[in-house]
Amino acid sequence: MIRVAVDAMGGDRAPEINVDGALLALERFSDLQVILCGPKELLESKLRGRNYDHSRLEIDDAPELVAMDEHPGKIVRTKPNSGVVRSAVLVKQGQADAALSAGNTGAAMAAALFKIGRIAGVERPAIGVPLPIGRKFALLVDAGANADCRPNHLMQFAKMGSIYASQILKVANPKVGLLNIGEEAEKGNELAKETYQLLSSATDLNFIGNIEGRDIPAGTADVIVCDGFVGNIVLKLVEGMWKQFGLILKEQIFTGLGGKFAGLTVKRRIDELKKGLDVSEIGGAALLGVEGVYIISHGSSDAKAIMNAIRVARESVQIGLIEKLKQNITF
Amino acid sequence: MIRVAVDAMGGDRAPEINVDGALLALERFSDLQVILCGPKELLESKLRGRNYDHSRLEIDDAPELVAMDEHPGKIVRTKPNSGVVRSAVLVKQGQADAALSAGNTGAAMAAALFKIGRIAGVERPAIGVPLPIGRKFALLVDAGANADCRPNHLMQFAKMGSIYASQILKVANPKVGLLNIGEEAEKGNELAKETYQLLSSATDLNFIGNIEGRDIPAGTADVIVCDGFVGNIVLKLVEGMWKQFGLILKEQIFTGLGGKFAGLTVKRRIDELKKGLDVSEIGGAALLGVEGVYIISHGSSDAKAIMNAIRVARESVQIGLIEKLKQNITF
Repeated sequence: MIRVAVDAMGGDRAPEINVDGALLALERFSDLQVILCGPKELLESKLRGRNYDHSRLEIDDAPELVAMDEHPGKIVRTKPNSGVVRSAVLVKQGQADAALSAGNTGAAMAAALFKIGRIAGVERPAIGVPLPIGRKFALLVDAGANADCRPNHLMQFAKMGSIYASQILKVANPKVGLLNIGEEAEKGNELAKETYQLLSSATDLNFIGNIEGRDIPAGTADVIVCDGFVGNIVLKLVEGMWKQFGLILKEQIFTGLGGKFAGLTVKRRIDELKKGLDVSEIGGAALLGVEGVYIISHGSSDAKAIMNAIRVARESVQIGLIEKLKQNITF
Repeated sequence: MIRVAVDAMGGDRAPEINVDGALLALERFSDLQVILCGPKELLESKLRGRNYDHSRLEIDDAPELVAMDEHPGKIVRTKPNSGVVRSAVLVKQGQADAALSAGNTGAAMAAALFKIGRIAGVERPAIGVPLPIGRKFALLVDAGANADCRPNHLMQFAKMGSIYASQILKVANPKVGLLNIGEEAEKGNELAKETYQLLSSATDLNFIGNIEGRDIPAGTADVIVCDGFVGNIVLKLVEGMWKQFGLILKEQIFTGLGGKFAGLTVKRRIDELKKGLDVSEIGGAALLGVEGVYIISHGSSDAKAIMNAIRVARESVQIGLIEKLKQNITF
């Protein structure tokens, strides 16, 4: 059995989507056990009358609620009985093999950091987000955990990201690119220039050099390394651009009588296209560098996204991700 | 007459597109005079047999050629007779009212900076690029001139950008957003946090606070302020996403017999859509903070893009952009 603790109150449509996602995952994976961390009575009321294997789902009573704008560190200190903190504690205590939250990313990071702790040698755990690039994914790391970084932090992100990409995203010998504003080694800000030197001399990385903004959607790199300030802007910009494309397509193509007619044929293709880019298929972001599996799902996740995040958590445990990180990272 | 000096050898398809663009602009604007800066004989051969008002086009012989990867400072020092340097010198000497290059952006920046000079009080001139956002434009500043910045630099970018947006992009009381990784004042890296405080207390800005990556395509701000490292990544990422979007549309929608049939109807709409997003309509980026009008056009510009860049240069002169910047900037 692989035991995944889910912050049942995380996300815009909690607890419903977490409950629904957990039940979907239980149905799909017979070796899965889910621990829903949240207010017991509320969760029981949501589960009542639902059809699932009761022996593989339990509730960890965590009645304290956190808001999206609460300070992460304060949540960890003052709300030990919130779903986000309990899910991390269960991992630390060995009562769960992995944890998952679709709530406040900062809170999940803080809970994981303070309750589970870091892998020895890792200075700054980072958020690795698989970005949808055409039909594949490229891992963006750091996607927002560390706004100010030093070159050595970025090198650690590169190494952890490379291991994650090969183990979880199944990319052989992942190409690591440093996000910069020019191809040449001497281009960029001070951070990028110094990081370039570190990455160039690393023997355990397939470093392909600097990549530029336009190389992200082109899929030039499998692992995109940058500080969390740049990474978070990139992540949200890519998200916003897809949304804008969708709006434009809808507005431009399916208007007018001719458009509506043609739309009947084209719609099928656009649905296929959307499916290929479905963010709910990504399965969430990983907290890389924490000594335990903790997956973060988007706040706007639906049940399918939660199910996929549980899938990634389960798979991370199955392949022994944390051990692999510990064994293969040399700093 | 408004006299615009054009670096005839700038851009991937120089000198042809510069010559063609200049002739288009001469045809469109009867008050325009163009000075093509480049190898005299080559340009004469390209102009031979063409139909244009000879009294409004002259050649400034600039036989030295620069490569895209040459060091900007070195070009200015060692190639005084290159098109990019000559175009700036003509502005400084009052022989031209504005200059334009589609070549090496760094070289244009260096030429403008060293040959024309900065507006008094401006610490770092920046590149302002109008990003296509739906049917309008948002000015991204700095789009790549300054990789490492201090808070005061960003405040100057905000002020110069705001004036440019209102004067050239015709946005009344432009909304200025600080590109960051969260909405709250305390979010972001050290640079963003300190800049937020400066922008909040500026009385001559319509500062709307922090904006995130997803707010860029949503058009939340008219002026997007960030350092040149982040700005250049954003610029190229947006460019790359549009390109990817085009490829996906082409691949997904216009394949198969049904798709081809539907495509006949849909194609017209996509053409309209593309037109709305046409980068060649933007008319180039501006070097903000230089004491003269210098417009930078994309290296992949076509004749229409050059014509539009000349249009923006002409308009900047017409409205007295430099004087307006001098009068309205308080540092």
